[in-house]
Amino acid sequence: MDDLNLSHHISQQFAAELEDVRSRVLTMGGMVEDQLRGAVEAMVECDSELAGEIADNDYLINRLEVEIDEECTQILARRQPAASDLRLVMAVIKTITDLERIGDEAERVARMAQHMASENIADSLRMEIGHMGELVQSMLHDVLDAFARTDVNDAVDVVGRDRKVDNKFDSLTRQLITYMAENSRNIHSALNVLWAARSLERIGDRCKNIAEYVIYLVGGKDIRHTKLSRKLVQSKSQDEPEADELE
Amino acid sequence: MDDLNLSHHISQQFAAELEDVRSRVLTMGGMVEDQLRGAVEAMVECDSELAGEIADNDYLINRLEVEIDEECTQILARRQPAASDLRLVMAVIKTITDLERIGDEAERVARMAQHMASENIADSLRMEIGHMGELVQSMLHDVLDAFARTDVNDAVDVVGRDRKVDNKFDSLTRQLITYMAENSRNIHSALNVLWAARSLERIGDRCKNIAEYVIYLVGGKDIRHTKLSRKLVQSKSQDEPEADELE
Repeated sequence: MDDLNLSHHISQQFAAELEDVRSRVLTMGGMVEDQLRGAVEAMVECDSELAGEIADNDYLINRLEVEIDEECTQILARRQPAASDLRLVMAVIKTITDLERIGDEAERVARMAQHMASENIADSLRMEIGHMGELVQSMLHDVLDAFARTDVNDAVDVVGRDRKVDNKFDSLTRQLITYMAENSRNIHSALNVLWAARSLERIGDRCKNIAEYVIYLVGGKDIRHTKLSRKLVQSKSQDEPEADELE
Repeated sequence: MDDLNLSHHISQQFAAELEDVRSRVLTMGGMVEDQLRGAVEAMVECDSELAGEIADNDYLINRLEVEIDEECTQILARRQPAASDLRLVMAVIKTITDLERIGDEAERVARMAQHMASENIADSLRMEIGHMGELVQSMLHDVLDAFARTDVNDAVDVVGRDRKVDNKFDSLTRQLITYMAENSRNIHSALNVLWAARSLERIGDRCKNIAEYVIYLVGGKDIRHTKLSRKLVQSKSQDEPEADELE
């Protein structure tokens, strides 16, 4: 094999390795989506068995995170990627950390669903948590889609939707305070709903993080904690005040 | 300059860059420690002014995270580090993410302290949150020390101490449920204490994450989610059951 062929061969192998990493991130993302969907369903349907399965499956996601992380380190050591290839590896390393933590939060939701399955929670509260679950599920789905297609517009859209989740969390908290005040026997179960809601709210934050990595991946610009992050979102929805400073 | 000198010069520069990154991580860690100390003090002392300062300072930590992250990417692109140098860069990239999030949690504690400054919370609860704050402050201090000295033993010790924080959080939650049940007018302020306690509990988790990166940095072994992580801790404190599976 002459030098040119060898170099072509190596670059083909390298491209295949990068593609493999990308596709494994999406596999991991799909598993996290399944876990989140199951956890929310278990909570809404009072399905303690499903909740148990979800809680027991989290280790599969943890294992995949460690494997992909190792693969990225190998690529950095052997291939010494530059420019957009390096950005991809960096974005993957950060994305899988957030995906793994979303898996942890889904596990927490599932464990709360187990506690709540035998408790008499107002249907309206279950519906509310189900609705909040739908919001973050669609954020997770769309941010993975944005990652797969390296689509900045969709990523920006996800960043903007995090605010809706925060608002939903605030309104649910107010409802839960009223519910606890009505009867002190409601306090324990209301706190379980509150923890589940907090986990969903955090999942929204993490989807936003991943969306910011996609924007970095495409544009090479780290927009975390910046005015640009706000501005991009504002240009989508004109309902926010402008931040003058780093957040 | 001949080749040997040039190569020596480059390797000296590279060593200086790595040392600079390490020292900036410790600077960032010191800032996060100050933020956490201030947030806990504001909560215990009902100091609304201090709480406001802490909440307003978080952007400094965010800025440093982005700068160090950029520095790491530059090193990966220009120096193509291998072996222990690569492990250091990877450990730094992960550590600063957790430090930044600890800063976010400290900001949340400070915001809760602002809400609580005007509220009439039982002194015993303030003392409890202060004690929990001391536990996580010492974890943060010691894990930064372990990072500075790349000391695996100290890092393992920090991993083990996370359980104490979790236990403290559980006992505080039980106290808060009783406090809310006593009088429904306590619910609102009790939830503020609960959110602050949750933030401190999460800071403990993140100190544990950083400790695991130190272990990886020294040993080249990723112990996250593994039996080894448990075993290392068990050999320090013989009070835990053994896990048979990946967590």
